[in-house]
Amino acid sequence: MPFLGDLATPALVIDAALLDANLRTMAAALPGARLRPHVKAHKCTALARRQAALGHRTFTCATIREVEGLVAAGLADDVLLANEVLDARRLGALDARVTVAVDSEETIEAAALGGVSAVLIDVNVGMPRCGCDPADAARLADHARARGVEVRGVMGYEGHAMLLPDRTQRTSLVANAMESLAAAHAAVGGDVVSSGGTGTFDLNTLATEIQAGSYALMDTAYAKLALPFRPALSLLGTVLSTSRAGHAVADVGSKALGMDHGPSAIDDADVWFFSDEHVTFAPHRPTRVGDRVRVRPAHVDPTMACHERVYLVDGDRVVDTWLIDLRGW
Amino acid sequence: MPFLGDLATPALVIDAALLDANLRTMAAALPGARLRPHVKAHKCTALARRQAALGHRTFTCATIREVEGLVAAGLADDVLLANEVLDARRLGALDARVTVAVDSEETIEAAALGGVSAVLIDVNVGMPRCGCDPADAARLADHARARGVEVRGVMGYEGHAMLLPDRTQRTSLVANAMESLAAAHAAVGGDVVSSGGTGTFDLNTLATEIQAGSYALMDTAYAKLALPFRPALSLLGTVLSTSRAGHAVADVGSKALGMDHGPSAIDDADVWFFSDEHVTFAPHRPTRVGDRVRVRPAHVDPTMACHERVYLVDGDRVVDTWLIDLRGW
Repeated sequence: MPFLGDLATPALVIDAALLDANLRTMAAALPGARLRPHVKAHKCTALARRQAALGHRTFTCATIREVEGLVAAGLADDVLLANEVLDARRLGALDARVTVAVDSEETIEAAALGGVSAVLIDVNVGMPRCGCDPADAARLADHARARGVEVRGVMGYEGHAMLLPDRTQRTSLVANAMESLAAAHAAVGGDVVSSGGTGTFDLNTLATEIQAGSYALMDTAYAKLALPFRPALSLLGTVLSTSRAGHAVADVGSKALGMDHGPSAIDDADVWFFSDEHVTFAPHRPTRVGDRVRVRPAHVDPTMACHERVYLVDGDRVVDTWLIDLRGW
Repeated sequence: MPFLGDLATPALVIDAALLDANLRTMAAALPGARLRPHVKAHKCTALARRQAALGHRTFTCATIREVEGLVAAGLADDVLLANEVLDARRLGALDARVTVAVDSEETIEAAALGGVSAVLIDVNVGMPRCGCDPADAARLADHARARGVEVRGVMGYEGHAMLLPDRTQRTSLVANAMESLAAAHAAVGGDVVSSGGTGTFDLNTLATEIQAGSYALMDTAYAKLALPFRPALSLLGTVLSTSRAGHAVADVGSKALGMDHGPSAIDDADVWFFSDEHVTFAPHRPTRVGDRVRVRPAHVDPTMACHERVYLVDGDRVVDTWLIDLRGW
């Protein structure tokens, strides 16, 4: 295995000790099936295996490809696609226990026609995205059961609360959201109340299972929340160019980073702007061509999706290379 | 071949007729080697083959992977890596005529050690990114020649002018930038003055070759410039969910779109926000679950880089599937 200095850049790296600490902290807080890790945050079956080894054998996915990849990796004891689909045939073809979110007659029909035998009723708990009106949940559950599909319970994502830095405000929004979800659950029945995420993992006390994913690797957006998880992911770059005007340029650009949460940060530097394959920045200390820089991603999920592989490192030593094998759709 | 309605979404699609018109318009304006098409904009050797068929046999790349892919595809008569590298060994190992940009003694040394026999002196012409001080160009050229490397000329990218909607302003910035580049060229020598892009393809009259890429597929940012190229790329999505509150949700999110130029647009709708796998939007006309939507990417380059393949369509008919095979590094 090479050393960090041998890696061609841009190179995505995970600090093995920080990852392990994050995984163990969460496993202690939400053991076993109390956590349904969301693989959308890392898209990496090798990382999912670490989560499974710590006792989490149920997973959450955002795409059919993610579900297929977990099944192929033998990690599909109980997989939830926490998203609506209108063609469920690829899911129905899998030899695994797959549950899919539904929020309309059309998505229930897709599950039934596609051969998916279990659903959660997805309830809108405040964020304008998928999810039915809470008052409509019971009707949809009846409709699903009438179509021969098992209704395991409800799901509701309080995404509008997830990244609020103020914990009191976050707590209050979660409480409101879960009041809606509790009412829907009472009307729908079933054992499962699936909800939550990294930002609300210890605030959401209604959910029977929390769908957190970002906690494993973290990013600069979640770092503002004072959670017990530390940034384990960084993007290694090389300084390509310097100038007398005080800026430097490294080979990490917007094709290597999720940009939807704004620019990522560089240790000991002010970022000016990202281009496709470059970042222009003002370093706080003397910087020379060939120096390495560490970029701290603003949004972990799309950053992982930009790369084919990620290197697991212990100090300066690369201890493993993991394929980011759940990309695409 | 299937029809558009058969494609699983999100699906990236190119309108074959619009692409062809864009390629022909550019080939008429800048025939043969007057255009050095930039493959960073599409990362697709099948599309590069179309450009080559219209007479452009020289290409521009932003990454080593792109150069390797063009060589493997037999499209490497004369490939320019218009970017600095500090380890050129992968380039030197290729059986092709490769030229690389240099802007420092370190990058010249990397070219010499890596076995790359030709360089362009990259000159900063106004945008704070790579490129040497114009006054330093002659010294670097001498240094390169002393290291046994051929100096073919200069390169300078007027990126700060590229997306300005006002043509007069764009013209003026290009003129200033090219004044610097002309001075550097006079001092450096060589036959090549490589510069420009889609936004300045007909304004940059100094350059011996224009490095345009976006013109082939276009995006909403370039669409504001009143250029003779039309948007040929769109991202097809499916409406997953609707609500009484007036918003709808489709399965096209920020993992399928470059987000660095802001949110992409949807025909006949107001976009509210993108999440990883969703867009929430207010449609201007009645919208039902299962309806298709067309997203117009805000930035073509990173959008192409999000996808494994793109579908070439003629009306509703899918006429070809192209691998986006130059992704990664």
